Amino acid sequence: MSGEFDFIREKLAPLATVGEALGLTDDVALLHADVGPLITSMDMMVAGRHFRHTDPYDTVAQKLLAANVSDIVAKGAKPVAYMLSCAWAQPVDDGQMDRFVDGLGLAQAKWGLALLGGDTVTTDGPASFTVTIFGTPFGDGPILRSGTKPGQQVWVSGTLGDAALGLHYPQIDGALDRAYLTPLPPFDAAEVIAKHGTASIDLSDGLLADGAHIADQSGCKLVLNKAALPLSNAARLLLANAPEAWPLIWSGGDDYQALVCAPPESATHFQQAGFTLIGDVQVGEGVVLLDIDGQEITAGQDGFTHF
Amino acid sequence: MSGEFDFIREKLAPLATVGEALGLTDDVALLHADVGPLITSMDMMVAGRHFRHTDPYDTVAQKLLAANVSDIVAKGAKPVAYMLSCAWAQPVDDGQMDRFVDGLGLAQAKWGLALLGGDTVTTDGPASFTVTIFGTPFGDGPILRSGTKPGQQVWVSGTLGDAALGLHYPQIDGALDRAYLTPLPPFDAAEVIAKHGTASIDLSDGLLADGAHIADQSGCKLVLNKAALPLSNAARLLLANAPEAWPLIWSGGDDYQALVCAPPESATHFQQAGFTLIGDVQVGEGVVLLDIDGQEITAGQDGFTHF
Repeated sequence: MSGEFDFIREKLAPLATVGEALGLTDDVALLHADVGPLITSMDMMVAGRHFRHTDPYDTVAQKLLAANVSDIVAKGAKPVAYMLSCAWAQPVDDGQMDRFVDGLGLAQAKWGLALLGGDTVTTDGPASFTVTIFGTPFGDGPILRSGTKPGQQVWVSGTLGDAALGLHYPQIDGALDRAYLTPLPPFDAAEVIAKHGTASIDLSDGLLADGAHIADQSGCKLVLNKAALPLSNAARLLLANAPEAWPLIWSGGDDYQALVCAPPESATHFQQAGFTLIGDVQVGEGVVLLDIDGQEITAGQDGFTHF
Repeated sequence: MSGEFDFIREKLAPLATVGEALGLTDDVALLHADVGPLITSMDMMVAGRHFRHTDPYDTVAQKLLAANVSDIVAKGAKPVAYMLSCAWAQPVDDGQMDRFVDGLGLAQAKWGLALLGGDTVTTDGPASFTVTIFGTPFGDGPILRSGTKPGQQVWVSGTLGDAALGLHYPQIDGALDRAYLTPLPPFDAAEVIAKHGTASIDLSDGLLADGAHIADQSGCKLVLNKAALPLSNAARLLLANAPEAWPLIWSGGDDYQALVCAPPESATHFQQAGFTLIGDVQVGEGVVLLDIDGQEITAGQDGFTHF
């Protein structure tokens, strides 16, 4: 490839599968909101921070879109399209760019997304990728962090801690590695979240840190039970041999699952959608995690922050 | 400041001046498109590439928004809101962040923008900033790169080359420095572009490079006259002493002016809006720049590309 414009025309334009993208031949894209207000979210990933320098670039692209899809799905909405800015490290590696585009294509097919536009630059530092994603709420609007109240239940999709275990114990188990490299947000759960959730957030910084955002914005306390946390078989096996890894389950980050609060009468809907009941909403503030004996667990209270 | 969340709550939230931003307290923002389709564009700036490491960060923020506003205005639309991702170089410099936020505030006030949301991370490399901007077209939709035809005229807003001269000859003239640091896109020209323009683009990579995009997409040739190019007094003075700088006028980049094509009967509207007639649209392809004797100028044909 001979440069920026070729990369856009040959590699990215085929991913611009909707008319609103104008074939990536102009400076803007169109955003139709015929179905009501769109919602939008923006996530950035930097090499060495959000992914390892050695991660294959097809997985970097998939993780980038997963993180953005996760934000939209947790709000009870359907992701539809995205803008992408790439800052490539120099010297630009054509093979890396090709793999990245392959990963975008896989993720688009999986989640029904279209590329709308963006920017492509180079940097003297590590590569970074920024996505602004757009979604359409299944309900009247997004399910926010605020909205739950004492007496409601706390549900989580999928399993917790796999990605963090995969990062901290690389090559112990392929499933944990995959959870870190190509997380799978609960795409099919958006409708049940929209219909029955009262407060919701996606887990990117860890269960306790993100749960605290719901507690803060809803003015309640979330009481969670360690024994109830959903674990994969691979995580169970690892924890049996390395019990010191337990705090990664609730503070490790990169889960890209949905933490949702809802009234007890909605329980069957969440059960049927594969969610796990992990606690309840009480009067108070913050998040507490209780051990099987009812004692509060204090290890791993701090989630990931960038500075 | 003690971290990422304080930065968002204390510094950025005051810039989220519309309800759709949800006070930056959630993972998403709302996009209403009651007035018709929105348009969107995304631009990224990396320290050492798009601005100098030594540039004051209030000007970096203003330039970042100027570059994004420029894209929207050139399409005949009114910029309304934006998403922002910041990747801060470590160690994070609180004073730099404060100045950056000051610059955002100035730019928001100047162009009537509101911050909707975004992301904040750190990087081991140079700082970078990415904006996704939203605008509402004054007409039925954006004025694209395509749409002009032979017989039409070529207009440009403002003056050309000031930023490039300011970059290459720093501290020669305060006006040129300012043009580089805090460019001023033709915000007030969006309506005349929407009403009378047939093809339009903002000049960020240089007159010839960006003009070529109109030529390509419209399937025409743009014939421009060097003698007609609008120059600031500061540029004229510098060129009198350094004639070798002339190619920067048409290939230097960072102008953030609008290049617009329109039929001759619209000429008075562009004149009244302060545009300068610099050429016409002919049968053929590409862009040619003619000297006063009608000879084609070949110096500085290549605009800025990133790789």
